[in-house]
Amino acid sequence: MDQQLDTPLLAFDPTDPVALTQALVRCPSVTPAEGGALALLATVLASAGYSVHRPVFSADGMPDIENLYARIGTEGPVLVIAGHSDVVPVGDAEAWTRDPFGGVIVDGVLYGRGACDMKGGLAAMISAALRFRRDNPQAPGSIAFLITGDEEGPAINGTIKLLAWAQSRGERFDHCLLGEPTNPASMSDMIKIGRRGSLTGKLTVNGKQGHVGYPHLADNPIRGMVRLLAALDATPLDGGTTHFDPSNLEVTTLDVGNPSSNVVPAQAKAVFNIRFNDSWTPETLAAEIERRLREAAGNLVRYELAFQPTNAVAFLTEPGPFVTMVADAVEAETGKRPALSTTGGTSDARFIKNYCPVVEYGVVGQTMHQIDERVAVADLTALERITHRLLDSYFALQHKP
Amino acid sequence: MDQQLDTPLLAFDPTDPVALTQALVRCPSVTPAEGGALALLATVLASAGYSVHRPVFSADGMPDIENLYARIGTEGPVLVIAGHSDVVPVGDAEAWTRDPFGGVIVDGVLYGRGACDMKGGLAAMISAALRFRRDNPQAPGSIAFLITGDEEGPAINGTIKLLAWAQSRGERFDHCLLGEPTNPASMSDMIKIGRRGSLTGKLTVNGKQGHVGYPHLADNPIRGMVRLLAALDATPLDGGTTHFDPSNLEVTTLDVGNPSSNVVPAQAKAVFNIRFNDSWTPETLAAEIERRLREAAGNLVRYELAFQPTNAVAFLTEPGPFVTMVADAVEAETGKRPALSTTGGTSDARFIKNYCPVVEYGVVGQTMHQIDERVAVADLTALERITHRLLDSYFALQHKP
Repeated sequence: MDQQLDTPLLAFDPTDPVALTQALVRCPSVTPAEGGALALLATVLASAGYSVHRPVFSADGMPDIENLYARIGTEGPVLVIAGHSDVVPVGDAEAWTRDPFGGVIVDGVLYGRGACDMKGGLAAMISAALRFRRDNPQAPGSIAFLITGDEEGPAINGTIKLLAWAQSRGERFDHCLLGEPTNPASMSDMIKIGRRGSLTGKLTVNGKQGHVGYPHLADNPIRGMVRLLAALDATPLDGGTTHFDPSNLEVTTLDVGNPSSNVVPAQAKAVFNIRFNDSWTPETLAAEIERRLREAAGNLVRYELAFQPTNAVAFLTEPGPFVTMVADAVEAETGKRPALSTTGGTSDARFIKNYCPVVEYGVVGQTMHQIDERVAVADLTALERITHRLLDSYFALQHKP
Repeated sequence: MDQQLDTPLLAFDPTDPVALTQALVRCPSVTPAEGGALALLATVLASAGYSVHRPVFSADGMPDIENLYARIGTEGPVLVIAGHSDVVPVGDAEAWTRDPFGGVIVDGVLYGRGACDMKGGLAAMISAALRFRRDNPQAPGSIAFLITGDEEGPAINGTIKLLAWAQSRGERFDHCLLGEPTNPASMSDMIKIGRRGSLTGKLTVNGKQGHVGYPHLADNPIRGMVRLLAALDATPLDGGTTHFDPSNLEVTTLDVGNPSSNVVPAQAKAVFNIRFNDSWTPETLAAEIERRLREAAGNLVRYELAFQPTNAVAFLTEPGPFVTMVADAVEAETGKRPALSTTGGTSDARFIKNYCPVVEYGVVGQTMHQIDERVAVADLTALERITHRLLDSYFALQHKP
């Protein structure tokens, strides 16, 4: 799965996070395409003395996915920086005001798909690591990079396999920094020290089709569905925990598809998704949902409930020295202490936390997945400095301004 | 709009309701096609001395529709027998065990599209009227037939226009017998002396799209929709009236169409239909629905409500001599007094009641609109005798067994 790497000359300085972001954005690496992004990073890292591996993972019925693992240093502690090189599709290309794969900078803002999610964050961290080792060639410990091309896709052939692959090779990680865009509006906003879990269920209510004029001969499943959904929403799942918001259920779709306004339909289907905190496991949560539905349905509503398998459990990286070190670095560069948050969606941190404590921090995510995705050049350079400061602290060196 | 009619010889005796039903079923008169059905009836009625008119009605964007009006006699009272010659489509033709346009009789049962809805009923009543006037050439009063080819379709170019057309020609009706299949299981079950009204509404709830991980940035319209629909169903609209069941609301569809289980959708749409009794008009009922929604929504739910225009108001033909006469005729032939009902869907009676009192009675409707639609031969001959008995009473003649 590995490949021998040559190390061609680069046309730019990879310790410049802006130039590296531009180069990455210009690689059209829409999942599952590698798009040249991992090849570029392999060159950058190998040129800087990293040992680089590019395992390709496969699964039935899915395209092969390229991944990258790189490490410099042989001793502990090992700080692994994780991320992904793939991006979501461009969407309506006509609606973009700049080339989504151009990496053009206008008025101090760099445009392009992946600019904030998360080529910008990945580039800034690589630049910082390169500058750190360049300036401190005798630094103790190791820095590793764990980069997948399958985070925005099914995530089957990505981080989860890359972690297992690294473990099977004897790689051990002490801490992980994942460079997802964690900041809602400015670089001092937020680091993430955990994530809620995610559980998706499909609810089907079965009735009996008939004519609306003869309701006693029919059984309207929409009536039962409304009853069940009202019961799911009637009381909060919990009141939140120390580091987590209350768990939250959203019905994401509800469909009957009956075109005739004089016909009572036979079936109604709904899908719901729950983002849950660390007071639940997927199993205890599923049991609670089943209990609520059973109670609301009684003998009146015939329903089927199926949960999608999930590997998104809630997890927390307990505040402690590593979390403090990241927050300190952010505060030192931005002048403001970031919030420690567990909000938002899921990320590959849910896989990494099984191997080592993981903290997420990156650029401002406001435009992620949108038309005209972009990142401020100043945020890229700030992230580079913050990462550099973290590496200084982590490897117990004095920070040099 | 009228046409001169020649009167070709018929290959069967039209006072035989079974032969006439077979002949009608063999005309493939799926709405809007005339299929030869009205031409056949025009021949039958003209041959028996009726004056026959075949007005064709048109509306923008719709196929022209043929209709038939016939009358024998010039004096009052005028009993008009109403019906339709069009049928619903065959559906899955492969699933029929008999030719849907064959009119074949197997074990005393006549098969075919329209056998019960309502070529059978129409044929039996025409046969009875022909036999009645043949045997009583000096009978007083008039018998009229009001037959449309647009009852199963949009009903724009059918009975509603035919009634106005007749009125504009000076035609006046004292009572109407509409031959729709009113019996659930046997010929003694039910005559209909009114119908509930029908009101259809479309309810749209608008929310704000977003990621399920950030519920505070989104507003799930499904939550609002469940709240509104639960409120519509919370208390009965009424407790029923002397001759009517309670009014009933059914939500017929509810659709969001969101394929992503991590996205809160922007909009949810529902359609509901209310079958309402004579304690409401469409206007008072719409106002009550609006009141319930407004109250349930408060400032929390943004919704839009639109009602489809309706001409289906609730109406009742008060029990009296005419209703009694129909019930007596049914009881005399079947040995059992039929129920006086206002249940079921709407029919063209909702148009006719604006011109004269209308009572509905026909064959057993169990298989209407279904595969293998059929009618018992014995029910056709019973309906012919019942109609003949009604004509005897109505025109004050002694019934001759």
